[in-house]
Amino acid sequence: MTHDTPLILPSLLAADWSKVAAEVKRAEEVGVQWLHLDVMDGAFVDNISFGPQMVQTVRKCTDMYLDVHLMIHRPDHFLERFLHAGADNITIHVEARYDTSVIETLRRIRAAGKHAGIALHPDTPFEAAIPYAHEIDLLLVMTVVPGFGGQPFMEKQTMPKLAAARDYRDAHGLKYHLEVDGGIYTNTAPIAKANGANLFVCGTSFYGPADTPQAMAELTACVA
Amino acid sequence: MTHDTPLILPSLLAADWSKVAAEVKRAEEVGVQWLHLDVMDGAFVDNISFGPQMVQTVRKCTDMYLDVHLMIHRPDHFLERFLHAGADNITIHVEARYDTSVIETLRRIRAAGKHAGIALHPDTPFEAAIPYAHEIDLLLVMTVVPGFGGQPFMEKQTMPKLAAARDYRDAHGLKYHLEVDGGIYTNTAPIAKANGANLFVCGTSFYGPADTPQAMAELTACVA
Amino acid sequence: MTHDTPLILPSLLAADWSKVAAEVKRAEEVGVQWLHLDVMDGAFVDNISFGPQMVQTVRKCTDMYLDVHLMIHRPDHFLERFLHAGADNITIHVEARYDTSVIETLRRIRAAGKHAGIALHPDTPFEAAIPYAHEIDLLLVMTVVPGFGGQPFMEKQTMPKLAAARDYRDAHGLKYHLEVDGGIYTNTAPIAKANGANLFVCGTSFYGPADTPQAMAELTACVA
Amino acid sequence: MTHDTPLILPSLLAADWSKVAAEVKRAEEVGVQWLHLDVMDGAFVDNISFGPQMVQTVRKCTDMYLDVHLMIHRPDHFLERFLHAGADNITIHVEARYDTSVIETLRRIRAAGKHAGIALHPDTPFEAAIPYAHEIDLLLVMTVVPGFGGQPFMEKQTMPKLAAARDYRDAHGLKYHLEVDGGIYTNTAPIAKANGANLFVCGTSFYGPADTPQAMAELTACVA
Amino acid sequence: MTHDTPLILPSLLAADWSKVAAEVKRAEEVGVQWLHLDVMDGAFVDNISFGPQMVQTVRKCTDMYLDVHLMIHRPDHFLERFLHAGADNITIHVEARYDTSVIETLRRIRAAGKHAGIALHPDTPFEAAIPYAHEIDLLLVMTVVPGFGGQPFMEKQTMPKLAAARDYRDAHGLKYHLEVDGGIYTNTAPIAKANGANLFVCGTSFYGPADTPQAMAELTACVA
Amino acid sequence: MTHDTPLILPSLLAADWSKVAAEVKRAEEVGVQWLHLDVMDGAFVDNISFGPQMVQTVRKCTDMYLDVHLMIHRPDHFLERFLHAGADNITIHVEARYDTSVIETLRRIRAAGKHAGIALHPDTPFEAAIPYAHEIDLLLVMTVVPGFGGQPFMEKQTMPKLAAARDYRDAHGLKYHLEVDGGIYTNTAPIAKANGANLFVCGTSFYGPADTPQAMAELTACVA
Repeated sequence: MTHDTPLILPSLLAADWSKVAAEVKRAEEVGVQWLHLDVMDGAFVDNISFGPQMVQTVRKCTDMYLDVHLMIHRPDHFLERFLHAGADNITIHVEARYDTSVIETLRRIRAAGKHAGIALHPDTPFEAAIPYAHEIDLLLVMTVVPGFGGQPFMEKQTMPKLAAARDYRDAHGLKYHLEVDGGIYTNTAPIAKANGANLFVCGTSFYGPADTPQAMAELTACVA
Repeated sequence: MTHDTPLILPSLLAADWSKVAAEVKRAEEVGVQWLHLDVMDGAFVDNISFGPQMVQTVRKCTDMYLDVHLMIHRPDHFLERFLHAGADNITIHVEARYDTSVIETLRRIRAAGKHAGIALHPDTPFEAAIPYAHEIDLLLVMTVVPGFGGQPFMEKQTMPKLAAARDYRDAHGLKYHLEVDGGIYTNTAPIAKANGANLFVCGTSFYGPADTPQAMAELTACVA
Repeated sequence: MTHDTPLILPSLLAADWSKVAAEVKRAEEVGVQWLHLDVMDGAFVDNISFGPQMVQTVRKCTDMYLDVHLMIHRPDHFLERFLHAGADNITIHVEARYDTSVIETLRRIRAAGKHAGIALHPDTPFEAAIPYAHEIDLLLVMTVVPGFGGQPFMEKQTMPKLAAARDYRDAHGLKYHLEVDGGIYTNTAPIAKANGANLFVCGTSFYGPADTPQAMAELTACVA
Repeated sequence: MTHDTPLILPSLLAADWSKVAAEVKRAEEVGVQWLHLDVMDGAFVDNISFGPQMVQTVRKCTDMYLDVHLMIHRPDHFLERFLHAGADNITIHVEARYDTSVIETLRRIRAAGKHAGIALHPDTPFEAAIPYAHEIDLLLVMTVVPGFGGQPFMEKQTMPKLAAARDYRDAHGLKYHLEVDGGIYTNTAPIAKANGANLFVCGTSFYGPADTPQAMAELTACVA
Repeated sequence: MTHDTPLILPSLLAADWSKVAAEVKRAEEVGVQWLHLDVMDGAFVDNISFGPQMVQTVRKCTDMYLDVHLMIHRPDHFLERFLHAGADNITIHVEARYDTSVIETLRRIRAAGKHAGIALHPDTPFEAAIPYAHEIDLLLVMTVVPGFGGQPFMEKQTMPKLAAARDYRDAHGLKYHLEVDGGIYTNTAPIAKANGANLFVCGTSFYGPADTPQAMAELTACVA
Repeated sequence: MTHDTPLILPSLLAADWSKVAAEVKRAEEVGVQWLHLDVMDGAFVDNISFGPQMVQTVRKCTDMYLDVHLMIHRPDHFLERFLHAGADNITIHVEARYDTSVIETLRRIRAAGKHAGIALHPDTPFEAAIPYAHEIDLLLVMTVVPGFGGQPFMEKQTMPKLAAARDYRDAHGLKYHLEVDGGIYTNTAPIAKANGANLFVCGTSFYGPADTPQAMAELTACVA
């Protein structure tokens, strides 16, 4: 899979947690390949979602690729637990506090044989990711302020950043995926695609509708 | 229900999160009245468990009394969300950091018509709870170091504290429940009961065995 | 003046800051000897009041004794500025964070020829003050949760602490003043006096009424 | 009023706080339209000035536009209080810590019907303001290190940044005011104007001289 | 060796660091059995001394028992490195911040086959050590405010605490050593001994005099 | 000495601390002019090395120029001690926390008659140093993640930054030295020189080999 392949990534945050196994299966059955898991600690972002135990719970339910987005401080301190829980990709924030450093954390993820990503808060310009551009498999451009669901897609503030990330990648012969997370629906996903995104995190737009095959078909079609 | 009534409180932490609704029902079906939910933020304790969304998920599955134990910093900052999620009791730690103060947080919980508890880390003596003794419905004596399951019951360090909490309560005509959490099995629960506990948080001892009615019966019997 | 002398201390927090000089004079004219200044930083307590410049402003208006209560973190870092601004007494909190330590800060205050006090938040038992009992001129027992005006006097939680502070002082031949701050009116001041207080910080009860001589007379009478 | 209109903004920090009402009136009488209020918490900057109560005090004295500059951490936590106190514009720092985020705070200010500004410490390049350029009414370029009065105007370090902020604004069809704060006198204000400033915060240069009409006239003339 | 055996422990802090090997040998040659190493991080105490590399350097020079006193935050985070560097005893502070907890850190030290100690700042009462009394080999009562040399022995504030630690130990059949650190000379060591100390950390009193055998003889004699 | 003069700076971190005086002399005897001292606090970087006392120890052994690199938070708080200890140059990090600010700290160093440097972590782009370019004598580009020895030279991530720092300097008529620290050997030093470095911090490459004159000769030759 290359960064030209568009993928729809349902976000567990929008699923019904009273039946996680079923919600995971619901994604599998419509052909989802990557599942997105949003870890929040109440300090890096103003909400607490879940930690390693939920990642492990999902891991036991599926062989899908688990894309774990750490919206937490001290990702390096918690890293081993998320690796052990079964993450396939771990994305960390440049804005978080580290015991060590961003670069060292990225290297430890890759040394464990996993993929490594960098995420950018809407407050952060693309330039902050440049020092890591050679060390990542994925760049996540947050398209809403993280912490809560239901926020509007910030097109004006984030699409130029996404395009800059794409242009930099292509100009330097790099290969990282470009992921967008927040407010992704059939009307916004194509805009993100036009600016370079190939990974589309879908919360309500995937788990909200009762007819999942239809929802998946529409989302897939709009970024094909 | 008074503080003479012994109760078994299954802890969601030990349940199978891939099917929370079923696990909640499993508790209901054997007569559980209170369910215990351990919220961890990765800073107050060295693990992240879950936040308000999981409390709300459980709330939608059951009418059981939800006993929410906040092992987090800034419980006052997050309070409204746990109240809104459907907690019946909220227990906060004296050792946590507050924007305001312990006392103010206890009062806000009660002003919302809910029960309020104080929890003591194994590192903390009973005396630290005295300033709040008149403001609480429940005192939780942690019987292991919080953060991870499977740790041994710290009898020597925590039973004198529990007894002190009971003696203080009875000497001052107070009414708070005494709860123990950590390493509670049929061999340790009676020790805790002998030192004053009436609320017994059971993780693996409840959710571990396949035969739940039997597990519940044995746990109930040992503290009867 | 000894710790048997009862004094009414108006709090600048309750004065009209649009005319501080006049408000200070209003206190002077009715015989006030000590003025109380509450410094808050928005981190130690959940409000920001004022800093050294206001202390200096008041100093230039009056020769009254200025009793400065630092509800701030790092009182040792800011100490020189409050000394320089003209404080006569500086009271620091045992619960605050220090670059150095409580003891060293108390010693620096006294080495500067000023009086030093320790303050206790409602959450803190008297025992926390014992290590400093020989190093202080004043012990302030907060009788409300600090940060905001208009809160009710916490009799049940704080009067036993005040009495303990008095008993300890008298049993050890010490001389510190006992000050109460928060919710002090003519109905609560006598309760505090009965438990050992001789310094009564009065906010609204002093600056609220239009007839200041009458307010002062009533407050003075009730603790005489 | 557009960003072409030059305005002199007296800073309350340099006024005589023993008679705030009179000092505010002194500004009004010479035609001042905007008053500048510097809030400091002792943590974001190394000084504590004043908080919401002083803003409210000034609000009660005047109908002038109150331009509140929050040199504090957690501006989002304190935001409601400054709005409630009567601020017309609230300027926040990109370098501060937030519970939520810069963008969310700016939006809350505007949602309250007030103007929102971004401030840049001398250590911060203009680029840090770009993500917010579409969300602000005002950009404040600090021309001294904040915290204390009497520091020299940092022409070499800050004027290129100011010019960059102006060029960016004009190139993108934006409308934000450009404000300078620190070391502004009749000799430095024209330099700032030449680089794009239209709002000139004047501390000592306004409140220092006994002849206020003359001081105001000279300041106004030099930026006309 | 039991807690009845008095020992003189030279502190490396007072040695000449330009020739550590020689300074260590100087101690060995006069019969020193335990060497004391003070680790400071500039945050827990207001000075930075040295870290694991210095402990390892000393370890390579000698077989003496190395008594490492961690005046640092997050002793649990750094623990492995001090164990690996060759510490025989590691003493941690109850007042420090921990990722996990005091109790867990003590257990990890002992699980590594080393001795574990608890230290109390002069600001901290003995009661704070009680929860750990069964888990320690050594209790260190700081007899000066830590951070800097040359401070006076705080007899009045710390000897009652030391005696309380001794009485508690003896009343509970425990075995921990009692160590004093700060201002220990031939005039103060006997006072500490009379209150229960058997381990006497000597900085200047050991490394200061040119005649080390004489200094050692006098120190040993005064606590014999 | 100008920024065209290449210099080899042995790092004390790699010396044998059991005989610092001898190790310093070893450097002096082969013509070293500047010695590099790495101060670490365990918070800014994940290791504790040493503090002011070691700098003072070295100062007493030599007249060499002491180049002190503060990998600590609050360098402004500790500044006086390092100046007093005998530092000739003090380099501070843009990424550290300050009580005041980077600019003020640089000015205080120069006001004390010493040289001032700025250091950039591998995570930090050159642009972060621009606000200080006129205030520094030295710019240190970290070529490994700081904290531990033995890490590989990060050519790809750091050489473009070094070149950018050189180009900016030359374009603006500035004079600062360019220093590299981390992984500097005879194979990497020429790469750094080609990108603008003139100060080469050598740890293992200087202190590792038994034949110091030979090591120094080779290092000197490779950057001549």
